[in-house]
Amino acid sequence: MPKTQAKRFVRNAGTRALQKRVGMRQDLSPQLWDMSYDNSALTLHGVNLQHILAQYGSPVHLLNTQKLKQNAHAMMYGGQQTKLLNVYYSYKTHPIPRVLQLLHSYGVGAEVISPYELWLALHLGVDPQKIIYNGPAKSDESIEMAISRGIRLLNINHIEELDRFAKIARQLGKKANIAIRLIFAKGWSGQFGLGVDTGEALAAYRKALTMPEINVIGVHCHRGVLFEGLGDMASYLQEIKDFLDILYGELDFHPEILDVGGSIGIPTVRPFSGFDKKLSETFRVEVREPEPNNYPTLEAFSAFISKDLTSYFKRVNRSLPELAVEPGRAITGNTQALLSRIVDTKETAETFTYGILDAGISVAEIVKYEFHQVLPLQQKLNTPLQLYRLVGPICHMGDTLYPAWRLPQLEKGDAIAIMDSGAYFSPEARAFSFPKPGIVGLNNSGESFMIRKSDTFESIIQMDCLAE
Amino acid sequence: MPKTQAKRFVRNAGTRALQKRVGMRQDLSPQLWDMSYDNSALTLHGVNLQHILAQYGSPVHLLNTQKLKQNAHAMMYGGQQTKLLNVYYSYKTHPIPRVLQLLHSYGVGAEVISPYELWLALHLGVDPQKIIYNGPAKSDESIEMAISRGIRLLNINHIEELDRFAKIARQLGKKANIAIRLIFAKGWSGQFGLGVDTGEALAAYRKALTMPEINVIGVHCHRGVLFEGLGDMASYLQEIKDFLDILYGELDFHPEILDVGGSIGIPTVRPFSGFDKKLSETFRVEVREPEPNNYPTLEAFSAFISKDLTSYFKRVNRSLPELAVEPGRAITGNTQALLSRIVDTKETAETFTYGILDAGISVAEIVKYEFHQVLPLQQKLNTPLQLYRLVGPICHMGDTLYPAWRLPQLEKGDAIAIMDSGAYFSPEARAFSFPKPGIVGLNNSGESFMIRKSDTFESIIQMDCLAE
Repeated sequence: MPKTQAKRFVRNAGTRALQKRVGMRQDLSPQLWDMSYDNSALTLHGVNLQHILAQYGSPVHLLNTQKLKQNAHAMMYGGQQTKLLNVYYSYKTHPIPRVLQLLHSYGVGAEVISPYELWLALHLGVDPQKIIYNGPAKSDESIEMAISRGIRLLNINHIEELDRFAKIARQLGKKANIAIRLIFAKGWSGQFGLGVDTGEALAAYRKALTMPEINVIGVHCHRGVLFEGLGDMASYLQEIKDFLDILYGELDFHPEILDVGGSIGIPTVRPFSGFDKKLSETFRVEVREPEPNNYPTLEAFSAFISKDLTSYFKRVNRSLPELAVEPGRAITGNTQALLSRIVDTKETAETFTYGILDAGISVAEIVKYEFHQVLPLQQKLNTPLQLYRLVGPICHMGDTLYPAWRLPQLEKGDAIAIMDSGAYFSPEARAFSFPKPGIVGLNNSGESFMIRKSDTFESIIQMDCLAE
Repeated sequence: MPKTQAKRFVRNAGTRALQKRVGMRQDLSPQLWDMSYDNSALTLHGVNLQHILAQYGSPVHLLNTQKLKQNAHAMMYGGQQTKLLNVYYSYKTHPIPRVLQLLHSYGVGAEVISPYELWLALHLGVDPQKIIYNGPAKSDESIEMAISRGIRLLNINHIEELDRFAKIARQLGKKANIAIRLIFAKGWSGQFGLGVDTGEALAAYRKALTMPEINVIGVHCHRGVLFEGLGDMASYLQEIKDFLDILYGELDFHPEILDVGGSIGIPTVRPFSGFDKKLSETFRVEVREPEPNNYPTLEAFSAFISKDLTSYFKRVNRSLPELAVEPGRAITGNTQALLSRIVDTKETAETFTYGILDAGISVAEIVKYEFHQVLPLQQKLNTPLQLYRLVGPICHMGDTLYPAWRLPQLEKGDAIAIMDSGAYFSPEARAFSFPKPGIVGLNNSGESFMIRKSDTFESIIQMDCLAE
């Protein structure tokens, strides 16, 4: 046996041993995304995804509008007949106007975090009463816009904003409708919000309630760290309820809107650890898939939040405020997939082959930190699985999407779908050496339509000023 | 002393102790970028940078065209009268058409790594004989374009490309002018190039030399890992020369072009370790500045490469090939600065205050991994330094640019310059909730002009298809 072959044999054995300890990765079923293999071709709503690629070019995102509607309804209704929660979609997660228009048509509002996003919501015709404005960097102009248009809620991120809001409201001769962002021991803190433990939050409410230009109407919190399940959600809600008791007891304050934020995950996506990452990069061990059934459905989250808070307000005999949530990834994440072609393969003396994709970290960076299922567009039932390292097209070592992933033998021209591309793919994408992909919608009748066009070479330089 | 104050006192003492071990950060002199403080205002070529911000809006990049020209000349001439090296600028590093036009006007060629970049170079009127095409993901169309337009050099990234190039050249009835990308023990490997140690590179040359459609004219390598100094460069060049001897001895092959790639650093930028990062995030210890005088100048690198290779070819009595380099950051990195305003400050119970900037990781992500000097646009000589955490505007914990940085007291509306923004800032930028900044040029007469316009709200959604 020649030396390279021997080396390869030993490496393969090592990878197998480690993989056995981690457990073999199993493909998640395409049915989780309403997809199936028909005559070995991956299809959605009866449409062969290879036809989508042929028609719209590669790479391209494909969005399932039926799933989008289902997710929005699940979050609002929790599987019941009446609406349980008001949903304000987190614009930053997937700020695609046509997608936002669809969500708004289902009755979803807008959660915005910048002057641009506030402008976009108003530009799309969202009722100001269905807009919540968050974030640490609100410009004076955008605060003015928010107050003068009378949006539902302006959330105070830090105490310094109170005086800024009051000053602007005074100049406008109006009042600012605000809530104050709370920070608990678990979850994001830093530049965000005011600590409950430190007393900052209560002090802020105390001050705000004395300010004539400030109309304190709500309580806001957003955990940031994803909820692990309903038990985790229960602890979070308990902290909020404890603070509501304090607000009521100390300041006689009762909110008309209670905004508990987002941070609900996607059942088919799993953030993985640095150790998982290392194992896959160095030892070619495939990252394990999540168990989608172990994560609560959107219906379950919605019904739980509603029931928990409704029974609390009943118990303490205070009126039920508007219950608001600000989900992002939970609504759009699993509605979209990124379709990408193999530009070339590169054999190596290693135990794996490189599959060079036309889409890499510049359009799918989050795949380096989260498990996202890969589905080949064409099944090859009689070929053995091989170990691939799936890399992007950029001339940089960091452009590696999947350090280790077994697939049927790949050839130039083959295509794959990277699932759950509907959260933080498009807003983080940049035209680094390659144009950004567009987004195609597919409805349940199998009709496709453009949602966002791909960059063209000309559009990439449209803001550039060339010399004569 | 109240509890928070006591905590603050202890934390401050801890930070000071750790900072003492690391050494106190010292500001790098503005003169390194041709800047100075005139009447306490930071100026370039006599222009107060606050006037640039007032005229063009914030945030915005400012590019020093004089430095751009100096860098290009230094790399080509190495401080001498005759040209020593042919410079092919790495488009991906700073793909800004007006900047590329300026570089081309100084005599610099184009190194491109994608169909888009090849198109851009031709679109800008670059002589095909001054274009080198690299990268792992060359589309068939772009290979066809490269061969039919007769570009200087098509570099083979992996062996599979040889047959692809030959097939396309045959169809065109032309020959492809190629070099093969070498991989040595130190530097990038993975999806790039063919190993010298493994024998893959020699086998590729052996095969290529027999192919009628392939015109083997060169040798290519690119280290990827930045050179630490001239000694490090010498070891790298030695590996190349050793392989040239093998190519000559085994295959009687002598290149007409020797392309040694890029990977020359910026004296005022220092990639820092995960440990430095942790110290600054957790213990608020400022990351230390590099020592710019310890890094060779561009003249020194240029003269060294030229002298080393010229004397080698003289010694072995073979003709001197075209000596080509592919620098990126070394040419443009220190020509540009990102000017940004403080939108707000946030006091905390911590030992530092948050300075919330209007530019964050979505436009300056590399600052999380490299030291980049911060210069306030306005000196405040009589105020004590304070510890700040400089964060961006995005509603995400990760949007922290400088976990610890001492500055004179900041107020809303104050502005800073983040230095050396001319490499990997603009191409990695995305309009995440906030528009991407534009680029303004400033020549040595103090005249400013637009190089790239900032995004507008409308331009961000120009590729979107809205419903009626």
